[in-house]
Amino acid sequence: MSQKLLKQLTERKHRDETGLFLVEGKKSISELLASDFEVETIYATLETVSEFETAGAEQGKRTGITPQVICITEEKLAQHGTFRSNNAGVAIARQKPLFDVNHILERAKKELVIVLDDVRDPGNLGTIIRTADWFGVTHIVCSDTTTDFYNPKVIAASMGSFTRVRVTSLSLLQFLGIAREQKIPSMGAFLDGRNIFETKSPTHGFLVMGSESHGIHEDIEPFITDRITIPRFGKAESLNVATATAVILATLMQK
Amino acid sequence: MSQKLLKQLTERKHRDETGLFLVEGKKSISELLASDFEVETIYATLETVSEFETAGAEQGKRTGITPQVICITEEKLAQHGTFRSNNAGVAIARQKPLFDVNHILERAKKELVIVLDDVRDPGNLGTIIRTADWFGVTHIVCSDTTTDFYNPKVIAASMGSFTRVRVTSLSLLQFLGIAREQKIPSMGAFLDGRNIFETKSPTHGFLVMGSESHGIHEDIEPFITDRITIPRFGKAESLNVATATAVILATLMQK
Repeated sequence: MSQKLLKQLTERKHRDETGLFLVEGKKSISELLASDFEVETIYATLETVSEFETAGAEQGKRTGITPQVICITEEKLAQHGTFRSNNAGVAIARQKPLFDVNHILERAKKELVIVLDDVRDPGNLGTIIRTADWFGVTHIVCSDTTTDFYNPKVIAASMGSFTRVRVTSLSLLQFLGIAREQKIPSMGAFLDGRNIFETKSPTHGFLVMGSESHGIHEDIEPFITDRITIPRFGKAESLNVATATAVILATLMQK
Repeated sequence: MSQKLLKQLTERKHRDETGLFLVEGKKSISELLASDFEVETIYATLETVSEFETAGAEQGKRTGITPQVICITEEKLAQHGTFRSNNAGVAIARQKPLFDVNHILERAKKELVIVLDDVRDPGNLGTIIRTADWFGVTHIVCSDTTTDFYNPKVIAASMGSFTRVRVTSLSLLQFLGIAREQKIPSMGAFLDGRNIFETKSPTHGFLVMGSESHGIHEDIEPFITDRITIPRFGKAESLNVATATAVILATLMQK
């Protein structure tokens, strides 16, 4: 077991350098093996090893690359996993190439694309990926200050949806500038926008969500063509960013 | 600094025994001091000590109980807080008495009350409390297997909303039985219920949300009078329980 590589891949620096990432736990690895990600190695416990071997062989037939499956003890696994309740295994997979800007812009002319400005919490990003997948959003654009898509906590919180939602990381300022030139609408969530429960919203373009602590940054604000708000009925100061994203997506889907 | 008490209050057993709980961080302590909770002691750093003294004195005028404010160093605080980015302080406050069952039932005849069946993750419970507070829901009923409302991670994730949302912990089986006898509607979130985007829902009664891993338990199901579902447009298997609660509340509020 390449203990060193597993440990290294918990850090963004090494993920960026190698182009690899970790997938932990039974559900996430099963979804990984049902996807078109390239999987290099799976360290599996006795409980899951034959299941992963079968699924890995199936994936090999589809993609041409069959992952190596190595049996390890639960104790050994526990030393290397980044989250506690994993008694299934850990996989090393290859990151997908980033989409180029034009691909994303073309998408946004036809469908809704989520844009995250400086979302730092991996649990929030993972939950947003899962929610996007539920509501049929397939592309997320992240500011380069947003937490890494391939962070093991993001992968875990996405509950397998990391295999279906594509994430691109770039400088938002430039990107939203081009979007504006191409007249693609950019909705942005603020505390003082128009009430999304009352007015019809576009079903294509960008939905920009701000950071947990600052909301949408000032330098991004001028690119927002439609300031929206979830109406408040009680007294909380704000909503969690993953919660707010879900409420907005659900509201847009109802129209 | 009563190091022992601070350490003990991170455990449910000691919180139950003493009736006390911890509140950490500037925002949460500020909201605590603006509420009618009884606050016993605040350990504050140099940065916050005078602000908390002023707010504590104000609270004392309103409630008759002025918290003791003790200045400590950031280093000392870091040894005792349960989360990392707290350089403001930690407060010890008294838990509120639980409401009795009749009070909750009367509430549910007029407004929406959230019921959580075995929600285990403190971050999810905290986020649900915050979301409830945003949408004007003031009461949450938790199964006795749901994570403790006064867990420091729940308090932190609620972002101050723990001061405005009241939570009661009880045996759901008996409770929902009484609700049914009194003909109070109980909506429950399932993967195969009616589409909430299409049909009108009651704006009073109970909204029952199931656990992260099992959904609503089998023994609770017979008490659900209205099986509801958030329609799926993509491929995720499920939504996070806090996300689903938010989407349902938002949808009910639009009608």
